[in-house]
Amino acid sequence: MVVSWGFPHHTQMASHRNRTPTFFSNGYAFAGATVLGILALWAFLSFLTPDSGSIYAGRKSAVVNGVEENQECPDGSQGFDRLHDPPEKNFYDDPKLSYTIDKPITNWDEKRRDWLEQHPSFIPGAATRILMVTGSQATPCRNPIGDHLLLRLFKNKVDYCRIHGYEIFYNNVLFQPVMFTFWAKVPTVRATMLAHPEAEWIWWVDSDAAITDMDFKLPLHRYKDHNLVVHGWLTLVEKSWTSVNAGVFLIRNCQWSMDFMDAWAKMGPQSPEYDYWGKTLHTTFSDKVTHEADDQSGLIYLILKEKQKWGNKIYVESEYYFEGYWLEIVGTLDNITDKYLGIEKQVPKLRRRHAEKVSESYAMAWEEHLKDAGFGRFSWRRPFITHFTGCQPCSGDHNQAYSGEVCGDSMHKALNFADNQVLRRYGFRHKDLLDTSSVVPLGFDFPA
Amino acid sequence: MVVSWGFPHHTQMASHRNRTPTFFSNGYAFAGATVLGILALWAFLSFLTPDSGSIYAGRKSAVVNGVEENQECPDGSQGFDRLHDPPEKNFYDDPKLSYTIDKPITNWDEKRRDWLEQHPSFIPGAATRILMVTGSQATPCRNPIGDHLLLRLFKNKVDYCRIHGYEIFYNNVLFQPVMFTFWAKVPTVRATMLAHPEAEWIWWVDSDAAITDMDFKLPLHRYKDHNLVVHGWLTLVEKSWTSVNAGVFLIRNCQWSMDFMDAWAKMGPQSPEYDYWGKTLHTTFSDKVTHEADDQSGLIYLILKEKQKWGNKIYVESEYYFEGYWLEIVGTLDNITDKYLGIEKQVPKLRRRHAEKVSESYAMAWEEHLKDAGFGRFSWRRPFITHFTGCQPCSGDHNQAYSGEVCGDSMHKALNFADNQVLRRYGFRHKDLLDTSSVVPLGFDFPA
Repeated sequence: MVVSWGFPHHTQMASHRNRTPTFFSNGYAFAGATVLGILALWAFLSFLTPDSGSIYAGRKSAVVNGVEENQECPDGSQGFDRLHDPPEKNFYDDPKLSYTIDKPITNWDEKRRDWLEQHPSFIPGAATRILMVTGSQATPCRNPIGDHLLLRLFKNKVDYCRIHGYEIFYNNVLFQPVMFTFWAKVPTVRATMLAHPEAEWIWWVDSDAAITDMDFKLPLHRYKDHNLVVHGWLTLVEKSWTSVNAGVFLIRNCQWSMDFMDAWAKMGPQSPEYDYWGKTLHTTFSDKVTHEADDQSGLIYLILKEKQKWGNKIYVESEYYFEGYWLEIVGTLDNITDKYLGIEKQVPKLRRRHAEKVSESYAMAWEEHLKDAGFGRFSWRRPFITHFTGCQPCSGDHNQAYSGEVCGDSMHKALNFADNQVLRRYGFRHKDLLDTSSVVPLGFDFPA
Repeated sequence: MVVSWGFPHHTQMASHRNRTPTFFSNGYAFAGATVLGILALWAFLSFLTPDSGSIYAGRKSAVVNGVEENQECPDGSQGFDRLHDPPEKNFYDDPKLSYTIDKPITNWDEKRRDWLEQHPSFIPGAATRILMVTGSQATPCRNPIGDHLLLRLFKNKVDYCRIHGYEIFYNNVLFQPVMFTFWAKVPTVRATMLAHPEAEWIWWVDSDAAITDMDFKLPLHRYKDHNLVVHGWLTLVEKSWTSVNAGVFLIRNCQWSMDFMDAWAKMGPQSPEYDYWGKTLHTTFSDKVTHEADDQSGLIYLILKEKQKWGNKIYVESEYYFEGYWLEIVGTLDNITDKYLGIEKQVPKLRRRHAEKVSESYAMAWEEHLKDAGFGRFSWRRPFITHFTGCQPCSGDHNQAYSGEVCGDSMHKALNFADNQVLRRYGFRHKDLLDTSSVVPLGFDFPA
């Protein structure tokens, strides 16, 4: 069976057209907080590394598993104690606990907390630790250039995660054989939560979504009272199965999420309630054509119809491109490129070459110059995530409203737009966003 | 132009056949050192996290760049200060310093040291910090399943890096337009060193190499007096251009390496000396058919002919599969699987479920049961890296000694063999190493 999962639904296209009103900027400011952040971090770090007098200050070494370890930080992994799993029992030792979606988990918050207390080296940073999860089918794509696009889309996500210190897991098997296509992410995210108790957030990003602002970071402070973040806008008046996009979501690694995924999965093809939900969702959403329960309609149903139970803990983000429709974005990339170059020409600090590892400090410096850029549609800020909704890169069964060629060119353009943000830390750039093969060296102080 | 780079040379096949004598085990022991390592690490980590009484012990937060940061460890990136690049000048501010291969760099050790002192949060762990670099061509593969294989091979490397806390950079553009195919890695590694002064080692791994022992770590202690590590065996009697493999190497981020890459690159297609080196290498290596200078012959020439200048700092590893020939490895995977399962059935501790993050502690526990396994050829230890030399997954121009189908099946088998080591931390496994699509849930206490 050729599985083609994680791709959005072509009829979403229509919905994106209606988004205009909610995509205006709400322009919040950053500068003050960043200064505070620097000072606080600096204080902590000077304490972390008391002696910075030599390259390998205070370094002791020992041979561990055949490898010379820096005892302070094995392999530079900065304090995680990967070498120690205490013998005391934890949730992994419970025979009843299962990674599969069909067996509910209870007291997960307590179990996760106990694990963290048992593994204290993972506590610092745990509150904001993000693990990105993505994936695609196990078999080659039907679209001849499908796998090439998936390779580039994966590289793009790995670049973003490396720059910000996030980890990423790519899954290309079905953890529940019947939950194919867009349902496959649910058992994947579920199992990933159990495998990664050190992560607070699991960030599912469809394989056909590209990160097109390598600087932007999820505003986690907004979501501190919520457990699930999705992109869209909800009007209680007219119910549309495309008012939220289920292809990119941020979900907290907690009991609420386990329960939510159980409720969500009950609507899936492996469930005895599948047909019931197909009918229910069809009648609930006037614009839903099929009678098959899909993950996105199910998600919106739970937000709207079970608001008390679920909706209140779900944050529907609409103020920036948490994910954005490619057809509305790709045409703006040239103008955005010019805008950013114009600012760089004015501000020497933004042109300063630097190590990839400190890219975030330049992202902060950029913010004060992006105050008027806005967010999302009609803004000239780089779109955070460009989602190739309807292009179906792997199957090639793209929406008939546009050609596969337009999809392919747009993906390459968006990926090269993103790649230029990465490559400049390696001294190069694509001159032409449609010419994937060639790069030119960046002159010193480019683009002065 | 369709670029097909980073792939080894089909005539290497022959050479692998001759490797037998040097591939026997030298079985060194680990246990003592690991205990030492645990204690030392534990001591440091308890100090790092004084209060482990709650999940987010002593956590303060601030909004930085729109994101709630844990001031102790932004985004859980464990102490790296990504948010601070001091205004004081460093090597990046030198207009004469270039990322391109044609402009030599001087005093790199001093420049790197100064950068680290300017960025002390990157000092802990710097001495053993590894960055893996790999890549493939910018355009789709000619082989219809080529990009699908590259996607799986990249996922395999990302899995390994996530488990061990290494970072990975995938490059799919040419940093020197004339240095195509196997020469492309030289300018890529060179630029990566400048972009990552925090990394001590750059580990180039060809796109057609799969990591098939997710537990094994490079024995860096062996290489402490060397700057470049390659796989092979050298006999000064008979010179063969395949006595070393240039598709996987570990190179120290230091001035020696910069000078070495300059000397190496002088033999490349962009160099006025290209033809001279083509002739010289052809006459030097009796088994080299072509008159074109290739990276591997050039590397071996520098090791042998310029021993004083380069050879003494190059470690030719032959005691484990630093990279191994797939044709000699793939047939042994079933037996190795059985051997490991047999041991797990005897040792409950090895069956214990655990977080992916502490996988290394189980790798250590495994070592005492692998003392008799040996390393490399004729051993039953999992091969560290299986290199699909001659299969040319992207171009499909495989060695005529075997079929493309054998190459493809062998790659899937090796990748599923590796994937099973990853998937078990997510609760699943491939029952059949040739069935990529389906996995089954692992029973509790598998394989008891």
